[in-house]
Amino acid sequence: MKLSEIGEFGLIARFSPAFLKNAQAGEIGIGDDCAVLPWTRSERLLVTTDMLVEDSHFLGGAISARDLGEKSLAVNLSDIAAMGGTPLWAFLSLGIPSGIEVEWLDEFFAGLARLARVSGVRLMGGDTTKSPDRLVINIAVLGTVRADRVKFRSGAKPGDLIAVTGNLGDSGAGLRVVLENRPRGRDENFLVRAHHRPRAHLAEGAWLAARPGVTAMMDVSDGIDSDLRRIMERSGCGAAVDLDRLPISKPLRRCALKYGWDAAEAAASGGEDYCLVATIDPARFQRIEAGFKRRFGRPLFSIGEIVPPTRGLSYLRSSIPAALGRRGFDHFR
Amino acid sequence: MKLSEIGEFGLIARFSPAFLKNAQAGEIGIGDDCAVLPWTRSERLLVTTDMLVEDSHFLGGAISARDLGEKSLAVNLSDIAAMGGTPLWAFLSLGIPSGIEVEWLDEFFAGLARLARVSGVRLMGGDTTKSPDRLVINIAVLGTVRADRVKFRSGAKPGDLIAVTGNLGDSGAGLRVVLENRPRGRDENFLVRAHHRPRAHLAEGAWLAARPGVTAMMDVSDGIDSDLRRIMERSGCGAAVDLDRLPISKPLRRCALKYGWDAAEAAASGGEDYCLVATIDPARFQRIEAGFKRRFGRPLFSIGEIVPPTRGLSYLRSSIPAALGRRGFDHFR
Repeated sequence: MKLSEIGEFGLIARFSPAFLKNAQAGEIGIGDDCAVLPWTRSERLLVTTDMLVEDSHFLGGAISARDLGEKSLAVNLSDIAAMGGTPLWAFLSLGIPSGIEVEWLDEFFAGLARLARVSGVRLMGGDTTKSPDRLVINIAVLGTVRADRVKFRSGAKPGDLIAVTGNLGDSGAGLRVVLENRPRGRDENFLVRAHHRPRAHLAEGAWLAARPGVTAMMDVSDGIDSDLRRIMERSGCGAAVDLDRLPISKPLRRCALKYGWDAAEAAASGGEDYCLVATIDPARFQRIEAGFKRRFGRPLFSIGEIVPPTRGLSYLRSSIPAALGRRGFDHFR
Repeated sequence: MKLSEIGEFGLIARFSPAFLKNAQAGEIGIGDDCAVLPWTRSERLLVTTDMLVEDSHFLGGAISARDLGEKSLAVNLSDIAAMGGTPLWAFLSLGIPSGIEVEWLDEFFAGLARLARVSGVRLMGGDTTKSPDRLVINIAVLGTVRADRVKFRSGAKPGDLIAVTGNLGDSGAGLRVVLENRPRGRDENFLVRAHHRPRAHLAEGAWLAARPGVTAMMDVSDGIDSDLRRIMERSGCGAAVDLDRLPISKPLRRCALKYGWDAAEAAASGGEDYCLVATIDPARFQRIEAGFKRRFGRPLFSIGEIVPPTRGLSYLRSSIPAALGRRGFDHFR
């Protein structure tokens, strides 16, 4: 049987039981943005790891070495943010083609070190090794979170509102600009920049984690169409999303018009946004929304509602049920 | 400048300062087998990570999926063993070509899960992602060690004896059997098995870590010719190794005779042995050696002596200074 027949999530479902059966009390593995492990009496240790392979996750010629170094760390910090945690230590494994220029690596490390510095993360080790032709980057990040604040994907309940902490679709549209080789005006550059230099919502994650009204949280890495399904699976619920309420940047709106893209669809299925999606007790939503705005000077965007599991994932557009053309990202399909 | 001009250790030397300068009290990063981080009052957290790329570190056709799964974990456990630690949790990142057979992955996971089970390691998460053509495996392992027992590469002193916990060169010779396509008799199979199914010396590492007379320790991953240089750098010393005293298995001796290999050279520079090399206070060596033999039913092999730094790394053969033809492994040269 080919892997493409079962897909990424089929693979994870196939092997998770073997991974999970040995877990001990206080250890939570696969199924969330980070593993949650015992640490001090009041804190938990968070661990996340992400692999980027050249030509699968990035195009060597399209992204600068400095941006790639920064992004490789950012995607891991985003997982820590999703649990409400604080990142502490990073470990870098690099599989390097031997013909690579040392100056390229200088830039890569500079980007990585810069983001580490501003995020308070110490690069504590790793592995440098040879790769026959493609660059491979694996970063693992360890962090901590207060035991009473850690947020999982599993806490969403019907009636909860679904909110995101930033615009959706810019990064996916930026990738499209690159792949479709669009001429680069200011809007295109904005989108490409969103793709190459994502920001992990660490402060937002920690702030939301401190609100008891936040029932579930994860980062938006594969597009909310895919990521909401993860929350639905873990929480045993459905979700109804209003496509008209997805936060979409002006550059994405303008490029969608210009290139004939469906902006809402790009926002729902683009992927690599690396903002956060949270589900929030409706009775506490207003206070949290207002507090978020005060704290960050930007809105917390309500985009839909958690519903009973039988209703699955549904979309509304102009108050009418709508279908989404493109699905979120699956690595093997 | 090409990476091949500075090599693996040149690269590490180039980037280590940026990694290390942000470390805080109680955090020890690059330069040892594991990073050592604060944990409980009496214990330290150990973290290690290793990347294996198809065609650089293994040949997809030469090693079985089950052995590869096991070996990918074993090389990380070996790093934990080198610090005297106990492994607790593993994280697996897999970059998978989409055409791979799911049955192959079943076997890979079975091998990994088996070694995890017998080593008391829980597989707590990771990342599955696409790779254009080559399989890429990255495993990170976390473990703990008593703060008063952790062994570094940096404690060796002139006069200390150098000892290894197992035979040297079998694994490197096994790789040579594969690459030179030698017909497989019992001896060849023994060597190939040493290459494909290395055993991490966890019990030996923990036992040696509990002996105050052990001044430095690391695992033998690149061959002692290369690995002893790491101890020399970190400890500021030299080393004199007696090639006649390297522990060499009978299958390696017989194959060396048969194929015209230099057995001592194979033992010194083969790599991937994954036993441990320790430096030991000469006043305590006899007791430790006897205790090791009682505990493990095998000898602790004394192979040489730590000397002042000015003497560098030297070899004796039949009591006469000897040169080593092949050097230990550098990934980029």
